[in-house]
Amino acid sequence: MTTHREGHLHLNAFLMSTGHHEASWRLPESDPSFVSTNIAYLQRLAQTAERGKLDSIFFADGPALHRDIGRRPSGTLEPTVVLAAIAAVTQRIGLIATASTTYNDPYNLARRFASVDHVSNGRAGWNIVTTAFVEAARNFGLDEQPAHADRYARAAEFIEVALKLWDSWEDDAEVGDKAAGLWGDSSRVHPIGHVGEHFRVAGALTTPRSPQAHPLLVQAGSSEDGKDLAARFAEAVFTAQQTLEDAQAFYADLKRRAVEWGRDPATVLVLPGIVPVIGATEAEAREKEDELDRLINPEYARVQLAAQLRVDPEELPLDRELPDHLPSEDEIEGAKSRYTLIVNLGRRERLTVRQLIGRLGGGRGHRTFSGTAEQVADAIQDWYDQGAADGFNIMPAVLPSGLEEFVDQVVPILVDRGIFRSEYTGTTLRDHYGLARPANPHTVARLATAEVTR
Amino acid sequence: MTTHREGHLHLNAFLMSTGHHEASWRLPESDPSFVSTNIAYLQRLAQTAERGKLDSIFFADGPALHRDIGRRPSGTLEPTVVLAAIAAVTQRIGLIATASTTYNDPYNLARRFASVDHVSNGRAGWNIVTTAFVEAARNFGLDEQPAHADRYARAAEFIEVALKLWDSWEDDAEVGDKAAGLWGDSSRVHPIGHVGEHFRVAGALTTPRSPQAHPLLVQAGSSEDGKDLAARFAEAVFTAQQTLEDAQAFYADLKRRAVEWGRDPATVLVLPGIVPVIGATEAEAREKEDELDRLINPEYARVQLAAQLRVDPEELPLDRELPDHLPSEDEIEGAKSRYTLIVNLGRRERLTVRQLIGRLGGGRGHRTFSGTAEQVADAIQDWYDQGAADGFNIMPAVLPSGLEEFVDQVVPILVDRGIFRSEYTGTTLRDHYGLARPANPHTVARLATAEVTR
Ligand SMILES: Cc1cc2nc3c(=O)[nH]c(=O)nc-3n(C[C@H](O)[C@H](O)[C@H](O)COP(=O)(O)O)c2cc1C
Ligand SMILES: Cc1cc2nc3c(=O)[nH]c(=O)nc-3n(C[C@H](O)[C@H](O)[C@H](O)COP(=O)(O)O)c2cc1C
Repeated sequence: MTTHREGHLHLNAFLMSTGHHEASWRLPESDPSFVSTNIAYLQRLAQTAERGKLDSIFFADGPALHRDIGRRPSGTLEPTVVLAAIAAVTQRIGLIATASTTYNDPYNLARRFASVDHVSNGRAGWNIVTTAFVEAARNFGLDEQPAHADRYARAAEFIEVALKLWDSWEDDAEVGDKAAGLWGDSSRVHPIGHVGEHFRVAGALTTPRSPQAHPLLVQAGSSEDGKDLAARFAEAVFTAQQTLEDAQAFYADLKRRAVEWGRDPATVLVLPGIVPVIGATEAEAREKEDELDRLINPEYARVQLAAQLRVDPEELPLDRELPDHLPSEDEIEGAKSRYTLIVNLGRRERLTVRQLIGRLGGGRGHRTFSGTAEQVADAIQDWYDQGAADGFNIMPAVLPSGLEEFVDQVVPILVDRGIFRSEYTGTTLRDHYGLARPANPHTVARLATAEVTR
Repeated sequence: MTTHREGHLHLNAFLMSTGHHEASWRLPESDPSFVSTNIAYLQRLAQTAERGKLDSIFFADGPALHRDIGRRPSGTLEPTVVLAAIAAVTQRIGLIATASTTYNDPYNLARRFASVDHVSNGRAGWNIVTTAFVEAARNFGLDEQPAHADRYARAAEFIEVALKLWDSWEDDAEVGDKAAGLWGDSSRVHPIGHVGEHFRVAGALTTPRSPQAHPLLVQAGSSEDGKDLAARFAEAVFTAQQTLEDAQAFYADLKRRAVEWGRDPATVLVLPGIVPVIGATEAEAREKEDELDRLINPEYARVQLAAQLRVDPEELPLDRELPDHLPSEDEIEGAKSRYTLIVNLGRRERLTVRQLIGRLGGGRGHRTFSGTAEQVADAIQDWYDQGAADGFNIMPAVLPSGLEEFVDQVVPILVDRGIFRSEYTGTTLRDHYGLARPANPHTVARLATAEVTR
């Protein structure tokens, strides 16, 4: 049973340096130079995604360098800057960037996303995260990251402030009456006067209401607190799910929570990640994936896995299964849901550490799938038809080739099956997702009062 | 006596909605729609400036809506986002945005400017300000703005942190050794471990060292503290100066202070603002300026002047001179130097409040000059030759026409006179300003050690 509203699924390109597979940079096709800082490269990837009429492109982010740069291409630009540079060379594709509610101020960040929405004519989306690594805290005057629950409490208030700021200008605030010398109607601009637990923000935004009014609100982080935040505010939810059953359970749970928050569940789209590896034959695809896995340097991966599991690297011999005693999710103050996913994956399939590292090497916990274009289309449609997804976050193992293959080979199949668009029908990211532009509460209240007093 | 190093002056286009004159939006040529949020309009202005081979474009900024929107076009986008969108459609022109050290975190802001430097291939500049209006403080949890001296103390440490972050990756940190599976050399990335009065920042930047290494450091704010900050760090200084004598004194003072900080004074460029109003004849230019002044609504301007002077609007009758008793600069916690400039201007020329408002309407305290293209070129060359300026911040009274006139009529005269470039000779903003790319202190120290132990 699904709640798809629009009759087609949503596809999003999650872009990351030479691809999501951690060894992708070692392939002959990859350019080992600073791909993450090469804007021409990122602009071309976005244009490829736009050629496929995907809903959007997406960048992850965090304000700290928290991995060993030996392992894989590192070094990311601030993604709202990247989106603005991409906006200038694309017309329709949505532009989603991750930004942390823990290490930003709401006034600055709300303004930045409103600005991206303006420069892209309504294509901005904000992937809301609370950030899960302590290295970020240490770049902002803290010794440890705030507790998981505190981060999520701050996130909720942060979003409330952002929404108020995005509504602080009514759409008709601009008057432009040259004769009278009146440029704007200040009664249509509303200082927000927010006083809360985490924030006090007095004024209106510097930025007039943007084309989408609110940039699309995306959320990633699937702990209990994460799901509640998503159910309350998010319009699209990125999640890592390994099995159909887990994905269905997550999907149903999230839609139910959205209903509890009084929302139409069709306005909360669930988008699991998938790492497709496409070959002319199934065997060719598998061989591609195996070749990538053989290029993983297990030492880096073991050190990172040990950090995620909060054990010593020595406790993870490569050819043994996970140790019996691992922390419970309650003890994890970083990324709770990803922790549980990794432990469950290892235990369920009785993987050795080496095998688990291989499974995580493709998509860091996201589902990997190798096969022909037809099989990839089946894998996507299967979850979509069975109430596990409203669409997918496509995470090519190798870039740019994996995105080109997806756009040129998989998308046409999905279009033929009538479950994906062949052309954009709207201009904004909200249009692509089938979501309305939010009404302005000040305008609504004013018109209601006018109605009553008439 | 001048310290010009390069043999030509520097010209910068300060862009602001329909132009710097507050009544510019009321002219027939102006589009009264949201010009400040119309990225296509801003991109065209930047392309016009690039056609004139100007050094850079520049945007002011502050994180609060602090003026009545009735008065003139209001509503600005976050300028690093704007610069990124402009970078994508220009090749050479420098891109300078203002950002506050009082209402940003150094990690996020350093990263954002490094990112603009990457996406523009080395054209970013940061105009460092401490922000001078209380409305900003109230958007960041404060009731009042921090004291002037505290803002400047924080600014100095903020810049130190930013410099450390920009140097945290050595230029050769990337290895890209596919065979060995080693992407980067982590010994070439240096967590900064900054512990100071205002900031604790542990890590390295997420962003590899950028094309210019350090975005050009620009400073605006000409109080004693402002001049000291500029002398210590700035490579270009924007300033408002009304008379040749004041500008010469400022110029000499700043160069002297730079020497005291152990710097080559030729690497600190002083750029006063000028609001040119260009006509085919002098009379036509004056008539243009008068027409603009007649369109000023004096009530808005009087309210703002009263706030700047910290008196009641009633104490400023339009047809009287400034009152005798006004605060001393010491009592001003906002913008000290601009306060003094305005009071001095009113007193020196014995202007009525109405006349003073007219003089400020063009450039808010920057020098206005109306005349033929030849006369504007003379005005520029005069200050340049007489040790009052290394170049100018061009602030067209009306946009886009004022910028087009400047580029098409004044620039060719300056080129003919041999004091301005006819072509860009480099690709980065530092190249345009004749400034070297900073060496990386870690690399320098490492090579020095290698030298000693060899
Ligand atoms: C597709 C996807 C992308 C994500 N991107 C980021 C990211 O860019 N930065 C980040 O801090 N967290 C990101 N997260 C979320 C973190 O993994 C982490 O979940 C979050 O901070 C807290 O998660 P929790 O609710 O499971 O504890 C992402 C999650 C998913 C599913
Ligand atoms: C050309 C120019 C541009 C400026 N732009 C800004 C700006 O965009 N935002 C801002 O807060 N201050 C800006 N200032 C500086 C303020 O006017 C103010 O001077 C500063 O915050 C403190 O100045 P003080 O050192 O004179 O007290 C600018 C100054 C000049 C000369």
